[in-house]
Amino acid sequence: MNIHAIREQFPILHQEVNGHPLVYLDSAASSQKPRSVIDAVKRYYELDHANVHRGVHTLGSRATDAYEGAREKVAKFLNAFTPEEIVFTRGTTTALNLVASSYARSVCGEGDEIVISKMEHHANLIPWQQVAKATGATLKFFPMGEDGRITVEDAERTITSNTKVVSITHVSNVLGVVNPVKEIAAIAHRNGAVMVVDGAQSVPHMRVDVQDIDADFYTFSGHKMCGPTGIGALYGKKSLLNGMEPIEFGGEMIDFVDLHDATWKEAPYRFEGGTPMIAGAVGLGAAVDFLQDIGMDNIDRHVKQLSAYAYDKLSVLEGLRIYGPGRDRAGLITFNLEDVHPHDVATVLDSKGIAIRAGHHCCQPLMRLLNVSATARASFYIYNTEDEIDLLADALLQTKEFFGHAIG
Amino acid sequence: MNIHAIREQFPILHQEVNGHPLVYLDSAASSQKPRSVIDAVKRYYELDHANVHRGVHTLGSRATDAYEGAREKVAKFLNAFTPEEIVFTRGTTTALNLVASSYARSVCGEGDEIVISKMEHHANLIPWQQVAKATGATLKFFPMGEDGRITVEDAERTITSNTKVVSITHVSNVLGVVNPVKEIAAIAHRNGAVMVVDGAQSVPHMRVDVQDIDADFYTFSGHKMCGPTGIGALYGKKSLLNGMEPIEFGGEMIDFVDLHDATWKEAPYRFEGGTPMIAGAVGLGAAVDFLQDIGMDNIDRHVKQLSAYAYDKLSVLEGLRIYGPGRDRAGLITFNLEDVHPHDVATVLDSKGIAIRAGHHCCQPLMRLLNVSATARASFYIYNTEDEIDLLADALLQTKEFFGHAIG
Repeated sequence: MNIHAIREQFPILHQEVNGHPLVYLDSAASSQKPRSVIDAVKRYYELDHANVHRGVHTLGSRATDAYEGAREKVAKFLNAFTPEEIVFTRGTTTALNLVASSYARSVCGEGDEIVISKMEHHANLIPWQQVAKATGATLKFFPMGEDGRITVEDAERTITSNTKVVSITHVSNVLGVVNPVKEIAAIAHRNGAVMVVDGAQSVPHMRVDVQDIDADFYTFSGHKMCGPTGIGALYGKKSLLNGMEPIEFGGEMIDFVDLHDATWKEAPYRFEGGTPMIAGAVGLGAAVDFLQDIGMDNIDRHVKQLSAYAYDKLSVLEGLRIYGPGRDRAGLITFNLEDVHPHDVATVLDSKGIAIRAGHHCCQPLMRLLNVSATARASFYIYNTEDEIDLLADALLQTKEFFGHAIG
Repeated sequence: MNIHAIREQFPILHQEVNGHPLVYLDSAASSQKPRSVIDAVKRYYELDHANVHRGVHTLGSRATDAYEGAREKVAKFLNAFTPEEIVFTRGTTTALNLVASSYARSVCGEGDEIVISKMEHHANLIPWQQVAKATGATLKFFPMGEDGRITVEDAERTITSNTKVVSITHVSNVLGVVNPVKEIAAIAHRNGAVMVVDGAQSVPHMRVDVQDIDADFYTFSGHKMCGPTGIGALYGKKSLLNGMEPIEFGGEMIDFVDLHDATWKEAPYRFEGGTPMIAGAVGLGAAVDFLQDIGMDNIDRHVKQLSAYAYDKLSVLEGLRIYGPGRDRAGLITFNLEDVHPHDVATVLDSKGIAIRAGHHCCQPLMRLLNVSATARASFYIYNTEDEIDLLADALLQTKEFFGHAIG
């Protein structure tokens, strides 16, 4: 991987922020976009735009081909069995809510269990709280080790024959652990439950094969994987999707409509009422091409190397606590500097051009388990370098000294 | 209005389709995008992108300012009382479904009425069918004249003290009638009902003042008004929005979250869970600027002149039937050529570079009222000219002759 050549393709990286070259370490919140994605969206509007599916004119056909072509790219990228298993959504949040509102509400009842983890992002927690409240099902949580790991043995003990849904993140956006979703899916299936995976932090970074994992539903967002904002997808097994009722109603998703009743198209269209995010899908297709040209295994290796490098650099800083497992982790480091609020850490770093995140990372329950109100987080992607991590480590040292002097 | 200068700003218009200069007469399905909108999206990704609200770094602040700035532009554009009354959605369909699923399901019950019209787009029909089925409320329809008009007198007779929701399109996407939404809103309010307006076909074309109409909810899509795909908005009165439960759950929309419960932020954020369509909002803001620079009254006048001109040209063609009112209509003409299927009409026109729509226009019940399975539709926007309508009329004459000979 030629990082220099990759960086050249991201226009936003070549700017100064507060008088320093930008060091963008917030890709777990949202990644930046390469020229090819920005241009694909632009070209689409300049040459091919019209509404999709309904048109018998040339632009309508071109727009439809572009939109459905993007679906095929996403299907291949995840190794879905067929493009019809890909529902375009606004992102992971909408995808998880669709599974919760449509699938889970129809199968869960009193005495049933929904099993998730305590490290879930709010998007994979609150929808299940709502299903539990609406249906009388019980929300259960996998036990979690000190280092944030969920073991297959604990999963075996937690999932029972009463479990109807297991939903877990593939990669934690706080801890950086990679959960054993394939093994957990097998346990879920042995117990008659469906397996839902929040792939927001995995799809951008690693090869994901939904058939190999045997996930029933798998969700992700385009904007974290070099794609546009406002587009993502739900992968769902075809038989499950076609058994689900839509939750949003309008044009394009119907078959027959009279004044008092309507019938639905097959999946994925029954879940895509209204004019879709056409340009977003086109941009997502270009992002898939971009990532595949680099190679998902190369990306995975690069990001994990950066993460291990950052772990080595940061773990030796006195008074800096890293959360989650050790060196072997996904592309992010969540930490706190003792006696300094993470917002202050982020603010000082920003004054040096370094963008990191501070807050609860949409994981309030996990923050309470970690016994903190907030943390700082640096996250890495294909365009980041070890030099940038050196800058981060230096800046953290200076921040520590600055606040040390200020306090002392 | 200098149409030539306006056309210059739309890159897509300057191409040949099937060997002829493109004549795009399908803006009611989706409008084209000016350079300023395409560039606003591009510049956002090149300079300012990060996730919004959560960041304490510079790009995060810039992205948040861009996103919230777009909300302010939309609020002023519709004359909302405050930007907090603007919820960004995927488009009109999502906005109408939000009102139906959250507001209407909580207020409707057995014996209550929901009043809509028979000219509604499926997006403003099926959500209400679903509410009626779920709550036991009755779905009632305004009577409609031969020319597709709904009178205030008929509205008076249809809305009763049992009516909880009135929802109607401001401008019909098939008939081109402009409904008296302000007068109907007053009747709804006298009866204690809320007024919902589908503004998909009005906001792009005319000055809309939600306070003057006194709409409780007003919805529209960005992609029909020069904005990107995948973005639109729900305007809702603040007190109503804050009394509504969210229907999608995740990050950004919460206040406090523990393992089993959560509380919501105030509107609009409670309805915007997950990473929003940031670039889409930025593009929509640019579209608002673009339209306001031209002037909504100028746009309204131009489009209505085109529509009247087209009516005059097409109504003299023998064997061509126009649906809806006469010359005085919004910017579209829906028609059929006798003995020729509208798909064939559209296909022949496409071979001459002219893009029109053919189908049921997401209005199957209205098609049955008109006693047709489908119609052709030509729709007009700021970049269209009388010359293009001449080309349309000539092409229709040729189509008629072609099929006349073929049949004869």
